[in-house]
Amino acid sequence: MPELRQDPITKRWVVIAAERNKRPQDFKVIREERKPGVCPFCEGNEKKTPPEITAYREPGTAPDEQGWWIRVVPNKFPALTYEGNLITTRDQFYTKMSGIGAHEVIIESPDHQMSLEKHSIHQLQEIFRAWRERLENLLSDSRINYVQIFKNAGARAGASLEHPHSQLIATPIIPPVVEDELAGAREYFEKEGKCLFCEISSFELSNKTRVVIENEEFCAYCPYASRFPFETWVIPKGHQASFTYLDDYLLNQLSLILKQTMQKIVTSLNRPPYNLVLHTAPKGYLESPYYHWHIEILPRLTTVAGFEWGTGIYINPTAPEVAAAFLREAPQPVFERSSR
Amino acid sequence: MPELRQDPITKRWVVIAAERNKRPQDFKVIREERKPGVCPFCEGNEKKTPPEITAYREPGTAPDEQGWWIRVVPNKFPALTYEGNLITTRDQFYTKMSGIGAHEVIIESPDHQMSLEKHSIHQLQEIFRAWRERLENLLSDSRINYVQIFKNAGARAGASLEHPHSQLIATPIIPPVVEDELAGAREYFEKEGKCLFCEISSFELSNKTRVVIENEEFCAYCPYASRFPFETWVIPKGHQASFTYLDDYLLNQLSLILKQTMQKIVTSLNRPPYNLVLHTAPKGYLESPYYHWHIEILPRLTTVAGFEWGTGIYINPTAPEVAAAFLREAPQPVFERSSR
Repeated sequence: MPELRQDPITKRWVVIAAERNKRPQDFKVIREERKPGVCPFCEGNEKKTPPEITAYREPGTAPDEQGWWIRVVPNKFPALTYEGNLITTRDQFYTKMSGIGAHEVIIESPDHQMSLEKHSIHQLQEIFRAWRERLENLLSDSRINYVQIFKNAGARAGASLEHPHSQLIATPIIPPVVEDELAGAREYFEKEGKCLFCEISSFELSNKTRVVIENEEFCAYCPYASRFPFETWVIPKGHQASFTYLDDYLLNQLSLILKQTMQKIVTSLNRPPYNLVLHTAPKGYLESPYYHWHIEILPRLTTVAGFEWGTGIYINPTAPEVAAAFLREAPQPVFERSSR
Repeated sequence: MPELRQDPITKRWVVIAAERNKRPQDFKVIREERKPGVCPFCEGNEKKTPPEITAYREPGTAPDEQGWWIRVVPNKFPALTYEGNLITTRDQFYTKMSGIGAHEVIIESPDHQMSLEKHSIHQLQEIFRAWRERLENLLSDSRINYVQIFKNAGARAGASLEHPHSQLIATPIIPPVVEDELAGAREYFEKEGKCLFCEISSFELSNKTRVVIENEEFCAYCPYASRFPFETWVIPKGHQASFTYLDDYLLNQLSLILKQTMQKIVTSLNRPPYNLVLHTAPKGYLESPYYHWHIEILPRLTTVAGFEWGTGIYINPTAPEVAAAFLREAPQPVFERSSR
């Protein structure tokens, strides 16, 4: 029989359609063809993007020239813009706000062929260091209350360019999904005096059925109320509200677990399109005892359709316990243990 | 400059990315090829579906044989099932509920080539009559609190079969999206003593910039905080909480405006994939003075990606004022005025 499951943090419901219980091989991965053309993110094409905001580059090389390994540039077609004042207007029932914020692209490598599962651990650390730097920088702007870092990989997941990149959109409001997380976590904290995210991940680690992999500092698991088949969260074991507080040791541990998790997903599901989203504390909650940053990896194997738009309930044809078992079995690279 | 707009009912935010202001011709409609094969919904293939729940058919014809013009059958792979008891279980932080409900398919025509914009007005009335009948029937089940009727058209919008059909999924819970609508509408009613939906549609009708078309009883407009390009809502002008209360005159008026609206969308956007969702009062709210049923038509021209999953904020590259102007200009069939 199918089950309705409720996410303990956001309170959202999903249908785990157990009858369908789809295995990795039951999903048809749809890859759309891309027009060949000059890639603006490739090394040598630095002039094809707006001027860089920051870059990690060889000493002696100039901005917007070669010699970089990470480059952050404004999105050419920004959803929100940096220049201007934040003005809220009300007219009848309608509220609007000027579209102030930022929209940036983090180019993750000079090499067009790279991907999260192929990057070296060092390169992944550098990507996450760039995330941390941009987060810190943008959260210090008084008009900005949240920074959404995300990655769309594959056309089907919304990527318009193939070159490995992540994006960020900084918003003047705390987004509804983050508000829902805060509300659920606050409620639990007020009742139990503990961080709900910490409690869930230690429960999952002892229960094991939904755990994909763990290392000293991180755990990757398929959440109880997964919206999507093979949805996987990566979360620090120790309490930490904001990604901006990651030290270099944690950056290294995160890089290790993320590379291993992505390799398992890519191998099991034949390079599926996916979205990856960072959930981190909004302004005002950086030291929160109940918010806990994490990464959500969302393979795009199903189509969100009328039922989901109408209700907000997601139908997931693969139970997270089944997904986690497949991912646990999948091969993964082994690395040297790094020490603090 | 882009704008952040808030939906007055659900309070959700969208980004109207005005810089992008995409016109109909800027969207690439992606149609995925389908495997040819026997269509289980075509006339003559009645034995290829589970036994029919109800059908509108010629007198003297037998169930699951030819002679029908509307046929309602159980979904072969139901997301929720009808048999069993509704049991809620809590374990640690986790709540689950047995997947009780219903999942049905309304086959809208014996003819594989039909579609909402091509059906005769009479056939559309019969489709809506079937919706009304199934809604009434399922809401009388004590375990069911909501019935989501929806339509996925085109592979990209989640349709696995091409033959014209809509679906319903009956749920034991009131879905989160409907809860959000109820909360927003209740709050307004408590303050102003009026139905917010009624107020919005009369404001739109006098303001005109977002109106696509109207007739005596209905209005079609692109909502102020449209999540998707060319999102269009069809709503009765008079207050009515539940679709189950439509009389035959209103069924006729709805059929007229829906056919015209769909024809405009199909012509302007080159037969885009779309989802259509009915929002109607859940159990307990059928006579509500503040809930107001409506249909949301959601063309699928953009990809929902990392930013949307992370935040719940939608980026819409076409302002609803621009979309409505295009749809107003688009050709539409003209019908005789029908009288009450």
